[in-house]
Amino acid sequence: MSDIRRFGEQRRYSDVVLHNGTAYWIEVAEDATDDGRGQVAQVLKQIDDTLVSLGADRTRVLQIIIFLANLNDAPMFNELWDAWVPVGHAPVRATVQVGLQTGYYVEMAVTAAVSI
Amino acid sequence: MSDIRRFGEQRRYSDVVLHNGTAYWIEVAEDATDDGRGQVAQVLKQIDDTLVSLGADRTRVLQIIIFLANLNDAPMFNELWDAWVPVGHAPVRATVQVGLQTGYYVEMAVTAAVSI
Amino acid sequence: MSDIRRFGEQRRYSDVVLHNGTAYWIEVAEDATDDGRGQVAQVLKQIDDTLVSLGADRTRVLQIIIFLANLNDAPMFNELWDAWVPVGHAPVRATVQVGLQTGYYVEMAVTAAVSI
Repeated sequence: MSDIRRFGEQRRYSDVVLHNGTAYWIEVAEDATDDGRGQVAQVLKQIDDTLVSLGADRTRVLQIIIFLANLNDAPMFNELWDAWVPVGHAPVRATVQVGLQTGYYVEMAVTAAVSI
Repeated sequence: MSDIRRFGEQRRYSDVVLHNGTAYWIEVAEDATDDGRGQVAQVLKQIDDTLVSLGADRTRVLQIIIFLANLNDAPMFNELWDAWVPVGHAPVRATVQVGLQTGYYVEMAVTAAVSI
Repeated sequence: MSDIRRFGEQRRYSDVVLHNGTAYWIEVAEDATDDGRGQVAQVLKQIDDTLVSLGADRTRVLQIIIFLANLNDAPMFNELWDAWVPVGHAPVRATVQVGLQTGYYVEMAVTAAVSI
């Protein structure tokens, strides 16, 4: 078995890549017709689902780089984030404004420790 | 010997840094007089060359963060990417628009698993 | 003891997260009333302080992603950077322009090898 494991592989990218106890993945909202708040809620839920699929949970997240299409959404983002992040297990995080594909409000690059 | 190995070291940065079986590097086109398509082709070729220098190949890439100066280049980027990415071994990837140094169309942050 | 160690944990984020010999953290200037040059100097000093707190030093940095609010600050940034980066131990680095919270000139995502 390879020391690299890929999950949800598609032609252009894999949903998750795992190597050496570290998982890497990118999340954007599955339903991009949703508004900003809805997309942030979706992405946080998707991260939960990905963690569960890896036999992990929110306490295993190491780092999240948060790409927002508009920093004016940061207060809304933080409201949902603060309700999501587990007390005693917060990851490191950066929040920066970049250009995203049309219709997208948020994209997150997640690094987590998993042991499957 | 140190547990950190640096390759192509220059005053300001190293071309590649390797630690704990994981290699990190940044690629921009060596010839920035090229147009966008040419720069993407250059960078993908440079990634191949870097992988070979590390005793690896495209199937060992874990994550690529793609910084484009203009998201309008995304379709062109994806055309070249789809021809490059090895079936069954796609990395995770994010694609965001940021400001790059004048003349540059693309910059990529690569993480790969290597065993040299 | 968990295989993940978190330092300087706050409600929203941890200052540093350590896993598998790799430390991840984000630095922005503690005093955002400072000008660009002052903020870069602060952040580089803060990275030193964080490294010391991890039993490490500048030679242990693997990768730094540099987010600048304005690429016109790159020459100033590089002047301070070149005086900071240890000869023979340069990390890989990317420098991109993004939107940062009002008043901030620079944000850095640091990855380092530590053995505490």
